[in-house]
Amino acid sequence: MNIAQQAASQAASAFETWQDSSGAQRAMLLRALAAALEAQRETLVPLADDETHLGPARLNGELDRTAFQLRRFADIAERGIPFQAVDDPAVAGPPPTGHPALRRVRVPLGPVAMFSASNFPFAFSVLGGDTASALAAGCSVVVKGHPGHPQLTLRTFELIQQVLAQQGLPAGLIGLVQGGVDEGLALIREPAIAACAFTGSTRGGAALQAEARARPRPIPFYGELGSINPIVALPPALNDTLAQTLAGSITMGCGQFCTSPGVLVLLDGGDGTAINDGFIATLTTALRAAQPHAMLTAGMRSAFDAGTAAWHAAGAQALLHEPGVGLAPRPVLTQVTVAQFVADEALRHEVFGPAALVLRCASLEEVEQVLAAIAGSLTVTLWGAGDDTPANRRLLRAARAIAGRVLFGGVPTGVAVSAGQQHGGPWPSSTEPFSTSVGDAALDRFLRPVALQDAPAWA
Amino acid sequence: MNIAQQAASQAASAFETWQDSSGAQRAMLLRALAAALEAQRETLVPLADDETHLGPARLNGELDRTAFQLRRFADIAERGIPFQAVDDPAVAGPPPTGHPALRRVRVPLGPVAMFSASNFPFAFSVLGGDTASALAAGCSVVVKGHPGHPQLTLRTFELIQQVLAQQGLPAGLIGLVQGGVDEGLALIREPAIAACAFTGSTRGGAALQAEARARPRPIPFYGELGSINPIVALPPALNDTLAQTLAGSITMGCGQFCTSPGVLVLLDGGDGTAINDGFIATLTTALRAAQPHAMLTAGMRSAFDAGTAAWHAAGAQALLHEPGVGLAPRPVLTQVTVAQFVADEALRHEVFGPAALVLRCASLEEVEQVLAAIAGSLTVTLWGAGDDTPANRRLLRAARAIAGRVLFGGVPTGVAVSAGQQHGGPWPSSTEPFSTSVGDAALDRFLRPVALQDAPAWA
Repeated sequence: MNIAQQAASQAASAFETWQDSSGAQRAMLLRALAAALEAQRETLVPLADDETHLGPARLNGELDRTAFQLRRFADIAERGIPFQAVDDPAVAGPPPTGHPALRRVRVPLGPVAMFSASNFPFAFSVLGGDTASALAAGCSVVVKGHPGHPQLTLRTFELIQQVLAQQGLPAGLIGLVQGGVDEGLALIREPAIAACAFTGSTRGGAALQAEARARPRPIPFYGELGSINPIVALPPALNDTLAQTLAGSITMGCGQFCTSPGVLVLLDGGDGTAINDGFIATLTTALRAAQPHAMLTAGMRSAFDAGTAAWHAAGAQALLHEPGVGLAPRPVLTQVTVAQFVADEALRHEVFGPAALVLRCASLEEVEQVLAAIAGSLTVTLWGAGDDTPANRRLLRAARAIAGRVLFGGVPTGVAVSAGQQHGGPWPSSTEPFSTSVGDAALDRFLRPVALQDAPAWA
Repeated sequence: MNIAQQAASQAASAFETWQDSSGAQRAMLLRALAAALEAQRETLVPLADDETHLGPARLNGELDRTAFQLRRFADIAERGIPFQAVDDPAVAGPPPTGHPALRRVRVPLGPVAMFSASNFPFAFSVLGGDTASALAAGCSVVVKGHPGHPQLTLRTFELIQQVLAQQGLPAGLIGLVQGGVDEGLALIREPAIAACAFTGSTRGGAALQAEARARPRPIPFYGELGSINPIVALPPALNDTLAQTLAGSITMGCGQFCTSPGVLVLLDGGDGTAINDGFIATLTTALRAAQPHAMLTAGMRSAFDAGTAAWHAAGAQALLHEPGVGLAPRPVLTQVTVAQFVADEALRHEVFGPAALVLRCASLEEVEQVLAAIAGSLTVTLWGAGDDTPANRRLLRAARAIAGRVLFGGVPTGVAVSAGQQHGGPWPSSTEPFSTSVGDAALDRFLRPVALQDAPAWA
């Protein structure tokens, strides 16, 4: 029996009892995991920094967020959200008005294969939001560790095993498979696995999704993939402070965020053209001054160079393009025409890292064409579209047609873990845009509706 | 421009305004459609009977149900359900606790390609539940008419066009494409189409789903497919009345229901074996006495013969197998062993028509094996499992793991249109088991969540 088989089999066993656990029991586990994570902060953060280069400030913040998520799903379980049902009492008489008693409940799916992300070694990894929401839903979990931070993964897994043992829960409730693509594929193929959650690239996600669909019993694949997160900026909104903020968002975490802004869409014409010129100049200067840290892996570093080179090969014009040093790239700013961007799919692929395209549109119609060409994004940001005008309503319509989140200000990096969040947009930004991987509704991914007809009370 | 292009293009135009229509406006349209359908009953029912052989009693009832569904979704729209949002006000302070204002709304997807069913010429066709729920959600619709009832389809479409004109709505809000497989595929490929709803066979649905996924911009495919709807019967529940009821359910509508019971799972042992013998004898007699009407099409009639022949070729034992006449088959009852059923996938395929398999299990474990082998079904019915015992809890767990609806009595045919309904189970019974094609939650298929961050009031 290989590791994937063993983990899936133990997760299936653990599911047999965990699916019937109470909200209080789930909350107790999730809170203990949060506390254990915090208690080991001094060990875990340096280990994460060694493996990811993300820096202690960011990593401490991410650990806080991860503990916050675990406690939030503990609250959700304790409040009974996974057990909420639609009660539909019998109505006497013939159909269509009359009907039997129905109760629409939600049942946990089974063991969830959870693929860790490279860029969030805590919040989207072993004890991240996917694991927290799956456990709260009553599912067991098999973590596929990311090869970018194997030691942190192992250490976090040991911590989990201690908590499970302390609570008298089966070790297989949260399992671990380390390795590469082959181990991941083997895990998805395990018959006991009932769903997959994944955070990573569009290409990697598409390959795993194909495997999930090719199984004799296909399973849902929740992939949070690549996204280019356009910012549509109307000239009156632009100023130097915003240029600095945008440069900060593009280079934050070395641009290694799924919500990193990758396209700046400006509306030229009249005074706007001069304002846009000035904004681009300030943005370029701010980007030139930024000092991005090392990227997560050498593979990502070379993919970044290949991605920006592909832009330039497609005829884009470099506004800022300096050689990086070792694993640390330099920010890249590149301009393309609307016609190029709409015609050439290569220009619409995410370049993971501190790089952005600038598009200058001559009309609202061109802005709409750009958004339609993007087709799917985790976010669209609208700057200066706050007034209730027909033009702004058109912009909102074009934005919401392709995005999971539409911002009317600020920058898309930073994804709030809260009740109103939607982190997942149309393809290629995610595989299941009706679901979210961040926020309270992440729970819904792991619960399937079942109608119980004329059921006794115990059911 | 071919018909599919033209319909998709007009539906996209109509969507531009319909997506922003009020609940009252949607309700007004849906109610007018219901009234128009009822007003033309004397024309439509005979036309439907000519084309489907389903008989006026059934077809009048189905028309009533269809009008009921339209009015139910009118009420849902008027109550503002499609516009409900999660309000998540800003919280001051740094993350993870602090966050910007978020409002989680749901946006209509766009034009929906709606594939009519053969077996419900009203309720799952031109003006069926898919069309009603899509319109209520703010989507436009392009109907792909079923070739089994083209005249009824055309007549219903004319009625729709009159109502649209009376209300000053664009003709393209509900479009029509008639034809076969090629026309259906052409429609799915249209870039403007944003989702598909389908009711039909697993094989046909799988082909269309593959097309929906292969698009440059993949779209959701809501396929309600084939299902074998096991009935698990514990001996104490069995009696002659129930045998008659079951025979009626198997032969109802000539077995042409997606919820038609296709597998009877009996638990032998002790007195139960004798009770089961008696039940099968009564059931066989009742089925022999039944007079099924003609099937919908010659293709379905020959598929029925091929399907039951495949059972017998796989080693199953015929309990009742008489030759039919013309389009009207005779009911078929066939027994297989648990080992055969679990080992041979061919025995688990739906045979559309009045046929059922009998399985006799020696233990609860064997019942669980049978259900696990079925893997996905619209329904599982449990007879005699009403008491709160460990065995019954195990049965419920095994049933809910594979079904969209679990019944504790009665027969699965007859699907209530109500708040608690779930019509859609794991593959191969549907493609999106988190959604339902019947009941209030059918609306959710056509609305995608979007988080609006720091949005002005007008948004």
